[in-house]
Amino acid sequence: MSLLAIGTLGYDDVETIHEQRTGLLGGSAVHFAVAAAPYGTVRLVSVVGQDWHAADSRLLEARGVDLAGLEVAEGKTFRWGGRYEANWNKRHTLFTELNVLETFQPKLPVAYRDSRFVFLANAHPAVQMAGLAQVEQPRFVVADTMNLWINIARPELDTLLKRVDGVILNDEEASMLTGEANLIRAARAVLSLGPRYVILKKGEHGAFIMGPDAHFSLPAYPVTEVVDPTGAGDSFAGGFMGALARAGEPSAMNLRRAMLHGTVTASFCVEGFSVEGLTGRGLDDYQRRYDELREIVSI
Amino acid sequence: MSLLAIGTLGYDDVETIHEQRTGLLGGSAVHFAVAAAPYGTVRLVSVVGQDWHAADSRLLEARGVDLAGLEVAEGKTFRWGGRYEANWNKRHTLFTELNVLETFQPKLPVAYRDSRFVFLANAHPAVQMAGLAQVEQPRFVVADTMNLWINIARPELDTLLKRVDGVILNDEEASMLTGEANLIRAARAVLSLGPRYVILKKGEHGAFIMGPDAHFSLPAYPVTEVVDPTGAGDSFAGGFMGALARAGEPSAMNLRRAMLHGTVTASFCVEGFSVEGLTGRGLDDYQRRYDELREIVSI
Repeated sequence: MSLLAIGTLGYDDVETIHEQRTGLLGGSAVHFAVAAAPYGTVRLVSVVGQDWHAADSRLLEARGVDLAGLEVAEGKTFRWGGRYEANWNKRHTLFTELNVLETFQPKLPVAYRDSRFVFLANAHPAVQMAGLAQVEQPRFVVADTMNLWINIARPELDTLLKRVDGVILNDEEASMLTGEANLIRAARAVLSLGPRYVILKKGEHGAFIMGPDAHFSLPAYPVTEVVDPTGAGDSFAGGFMGALARAGEPSAMNLRRAMLHGTVTASFCVEGFSVEGLTGRGLDDYQRRYDELREIVSI
Repeated sequence: MSLLAIGTLGYDDVETIHEQRTGLLGGSAVHFAVAAAPYGTVRLVSVVGQDWHAADSRLLEARGVDLAGLEVAEGKTFRWGGRYEANWNKRHTLFTELNVLETFQPKLPVAYRDSRFVFLANAHPAVQMAGLAQVEQPRFVVADTMNLWINIARPELDTLLKRVDGVILNDEEASMLTGEANLIRAARAVLSLGPRYVILKKGEHGAFIMGPDAHFSLPAYPVTEVVDPTGAGDSFAGGFMGALARAGEPSAMNLRRAMLHGTVTASFCVEGFSVEGLTGRGLDDYQRRYDELREIVSI
């Protein structure tokens, strides 16, 4: 079934303890779409500036990403810089240049309006709402958010949370949103805000989903060599939504399977800078690692 | 099958952000034995001083712990004090008084020598070896250790690791023992030191077992109210070894099931001070939480 992603395209500067890279293809929608595309076409709605490289559009299109919803605006593309400490869990944002994102309002091509599975990547919740409003009959909508919006746009975020099927948060965001340090209590408190499902990501410690018919928890795939964790969360969302859209029905079992798929795509993501760990990996690679992970968690 | 534990009995002073308790029944062998006893009798080898309370022996015996191997020595019982920070992961040891443990040499009653499943709780590896040497035909031996012995008794620890079937470590100990920060690489490096299996505990993030026929990983049971994490690791070991001894054969599937049992007993442990979360819980309670956990991880 059709999968739509509304989010960010940008260029990242990343420093790890091993290496420093600049101008990397990045942004939430890039990691999401590159992770999800092997499951089926991903319709993308985003904006870039005049410094956007045509080669990056070609890379996305070659992967199976539909760029009919990509706007090219006056100005510069979104840029982000970050530095990781040795243990990967500590990330320092060095700079954020919104550039063309500052005034971005998502405009869906007519052909996108029948999208059934929708991912609203991290953005101001009013922008996420404006994008979602253009989808005629969404079947399953998942939104991401971040600490900034929890702090400065809580009313709009509360409205959004009542309109989505699922929200995807990391441990810190879930605690900030609910005031609960214990993640199980935090997840339950998130559900009381409106969404049917909460997907709670714990980085290298795995993720769980909680909802009316689901409480499913699993560890991360055992990656032995992390290169760059940037985009792991969006890659998780890409694998999750891509697999779910391909399955067609967000049943309890398909949601569990989607959690494994998300774990697999996140594991490929962290093995390279930018999307280097994902490009060149197809459904066969995904399936091999899915089977391996399933064996590791089977009881 | 018969289960033997050689370890520490003591009294703990524990401070959490909510409460302060002194003179709590504690020690590695106490948490292990109280967790394991519902699966079948636990034979205990340990030492206490003259200040040991007869009521604590009665509590252990009522639980199904065989105290024929409990020595009462001149002097005071082992004592430990610790303080937890709000997030539970940070523990500060306030004092350690070895007392009668200082000169303890385990002496197995003749009736214990045919024990088949053996747990060597944290102690100097030479003491662990001396205890193990008195078991005639052990079927499955698991040892615990700690940073102190990795630092000051490495040759003896290396010898011990070649004689046991499994070693149980937390993330910090595994990294210290091997010099590997990545836990998968650390686990593989531990296996190269001799044991067939390594069981790696990650506290609230779960645990995994790795060995020739096993790589099984699972999250912690979703506890919503932690009271005191003291003894969680030894309670895990108790559930693991108790279930394995009851099953009789350390097959790949029984090892996986034992990991769930250990996760369940650890979850009961942290819900109370000392062994208060475990006492009063029987096999039925264990099984209910086992089934719940199994549902949470099933795919």
